[in-house]
Amino acid sequence: MRPSTALPTRFLSAHAVCELVRREGLDRTLAGIAQCIEEDFQRWPAFDKSARVASHSHDGVIELMPISDARRYSFKYVNGHPRNTARGLPTVMAFGVLADVATGAPELVSELTLTTALRTAATSIVAARRLARPDSRVMAVIGNGAQSEFQAMAFHHLLGIDTLRLFDVDPGATAKLVRNLAGHHLNIVICTSAAKAVLGADIVTTLTADKTRATILHADMLAPGMHLNAVGGDCPGKTELAADVLRRSRVFVEYEPQTRIEGDLQQMPADFPVTELWRVLTGQAPGRVHPAEITLFDSVGFALEDFSALRFLQEAARRHGLGEPLDLIPQLPDPKNLFAALGEAAGPADCSTPAAPQPATRHAA
Amino acid sequence: MRPSTALPTRFLSAHAVCELVRREGLDRTLAGIAQCIEEDFQRWPAFDKSARVASHSHDGVIELMPISDARRYSFKYVNGHPRNTARGLPTVMAFGVLADVATGAPELVSELTLTTALRTAATSIVAARRLARPDSRVMAVIGNGAQSEFQAMAFHHLLGIDTLRLFDVDPGATAKLVRNLAGHHLNIVICTSAAKAVLGADIVTTLTADKTRATILHADMLAPGMHLNAVGGDCPGKTELAADVLRRSRVFVEYEPQTRIEGDLQQMPADFPVTELWRVLTGQAPGRVHPAEITLFDSVGFALEDFSALRFLQEAARRHGLGEPLDLIPQLPDPKNLFAALGEAAGPADCSTPAAPQPATRHAA
Repeated sequence: MRPSTALPTRFLSAHAVCELVRREGLDRTLAGIAQCIEEDFQRWPAFDKSARVASHSHDGVIELMPISDARRYSFKYVNGHPRNTARGLPTVMAFGVLADVATGAPELVSELTLTTALRTAATSIVAARRLARPDSRVMAVIGNGAQSEFQAMAFHHLLGIDTLRLFDVDPGATAKLVRNLAGHHLNIVICTSAAKAVLGADIVTTLTADKTRATILHADMLAPGMHLNAVGGDCPGKTELAADVLRRSRVFVEYEPQTRIEGDLQQMPADFPVTELWRVLTGQAPGRVHPAEITLFDSVGFALEDFSALRFLQEAARRHGLGEPLDLIPQLPDPKNLFAALGEAAGPADCSTPAAPQPATRHAA
Repeated sequence: MRPSTALPTRFLSAHAVCELVRREGLDRTLAGIAQCIEEDFQRWPAFDKSARVASHSHDGVIELMPISDARRYSFKYVNGHPRNTARGLPTVMAFGVLADVATGAPELVSELTLTTALRTAATSIVAARRLARPDSRVMAVIGNGAQSEFQAMAFHHLLGIDTLRLFDVDPGATAKLVRNLAGHHLNIVICTSAAKAVLGADIVTTLTADKTRATILHADMLAPGMHLNAVGGDCPGKTELAADVLRRSRVFVEYEPQTRIEGDLQQMPADFPVTELWRVLTGQAPGRVHPAEITLFDSVGFALEDFSALRFLQEAARRHGLGEPLDLIPQLPDPKNLFAALGEAAGPADCSTPAAPQPATRHAA
């Protein structure tokens, strides 16, 4: 019998990913994920894409986000439960798997709660590099929750943002963001309204979490040349922008069929024009064309970003010797003999004794 | 800050599930899973159901199978790669997750390669109890691969089958099945064709793996009173039965929308009549109504069976003290402060130093 040639599944725990970020550095981790996202978005037609599969309930949503190319398959499990913090749980929890398309074997299981925040910020960077003015230095951050530090660090390290203008309806959230950003050489201005936060901002990042049709930004708050990085409006019934903000902007999306349902775009008619980001990255469509135009990245999060992040984690974990084997798939001496694997554990009382006589076996005539 | 109230995710490895079967006994494990499947199918309208999400490639398919009721969500990852055995890998590998609908927290991650074989056999039992003649003693098993022992053991222990008539195009597969069944007090007849195997059989179980439109059974092989347990035809383009076998039988299915695409039913017109199994289990439709009729369970495997199996595993693992914690979701002292979890690991060079001064923070006028 030919023994199994599969390497055991590797596991990257939440602690292992923290350790990976420590060894790699947060800036290099964000840069590495952004590079993987750029590479994969440039191969866009090579992917088998679909909108995520969502299971909605009274308290939130649980989603599966699969995607594959000819070589690798990935999926992410992710929830969104706005009231979780009252139970002491994160609003968003996630994990994911990278598998081999040729065999279906799961190669990597990884935490993706932290990684989702990292890849969302990295995706914002990939978009902003093409859509924000190159001289952008001031960013408004509206919504100062769990995602906000990751966006702030990414725009600081990878795009040269040096000043943040912060607003949240909860001053405690802003105070937490300010504490976490201490020592990072950022000028921080705490504002008392969204309208004040956007004054003088080159980039406006919205990260609000309310599962409602909110209008954090109105058209009269916009200034020529702004880039809007709208991250919080990401499921049906959850928006952040007034419709006139979309009408005033040139709108860019990840995967149009999904954003039409989930993004701020859900408010607009089905023929409202948008450009998929991959077309900008491959040079098939222009990014920003004028210093005075207003650009909007209506980000909802797409499976390909998790694929890219898992690919980065797998490579970086190998490089740093992180991760551990996970006994997820039975290793079978004979892959056609699944029962024997169980039999060895189950013992002769319940299962097979291969050496025993076969008292009642006969061959039919 | 309120600490996390979530229990860590539990992990049931392939070895842990083998150990669970050893402690529980194979017969009681199969009976326990069958009971969970019966209970859950009787609550059929309570579930949010959908056909599986399949990603087809040249060599096989990778599928996600989600389902939920108001309290629990589950999904299974499962592949089907017929040529895997040549690489030393199982054709089918699987794992799954049970999660809390109220919070989205993943409670259990478990191997499901072995468990899929157990739950498929348990589902066949749930169907056969209502569809096979109560005096059934002889079962033909056509296709003697990885699933066959599980079906043989289930029908022996839970339905009183005492004689098996075996056929496989590969005599080595039959020899392996015979070896594994030694010591289990079954009369075994090895046959040289499918037609010979079904002679005198009360139940015919088909478990062939070819990903083609095969016709293992023809109508002229059927005898009055037979129950057909057709398990191998389970994806588009993969069938086992001639169309006239379906026309001669009363056909029962798990979830009609999925079986119309994946089952042997895919050969039949869209209005070909079938009965969903849950309606029989709840008394809304009859099972077998006459000793001479031919019944057919066109089994493709449905997400609810994995939900039921995961529920059984979770309860049995608790009872036997099996499983281990899995560091899949970061445990956050403050669930709104995801970055701090990373910061502690990342250290002050890259991340926050909460006690540091905030040199450039000011409040806007």
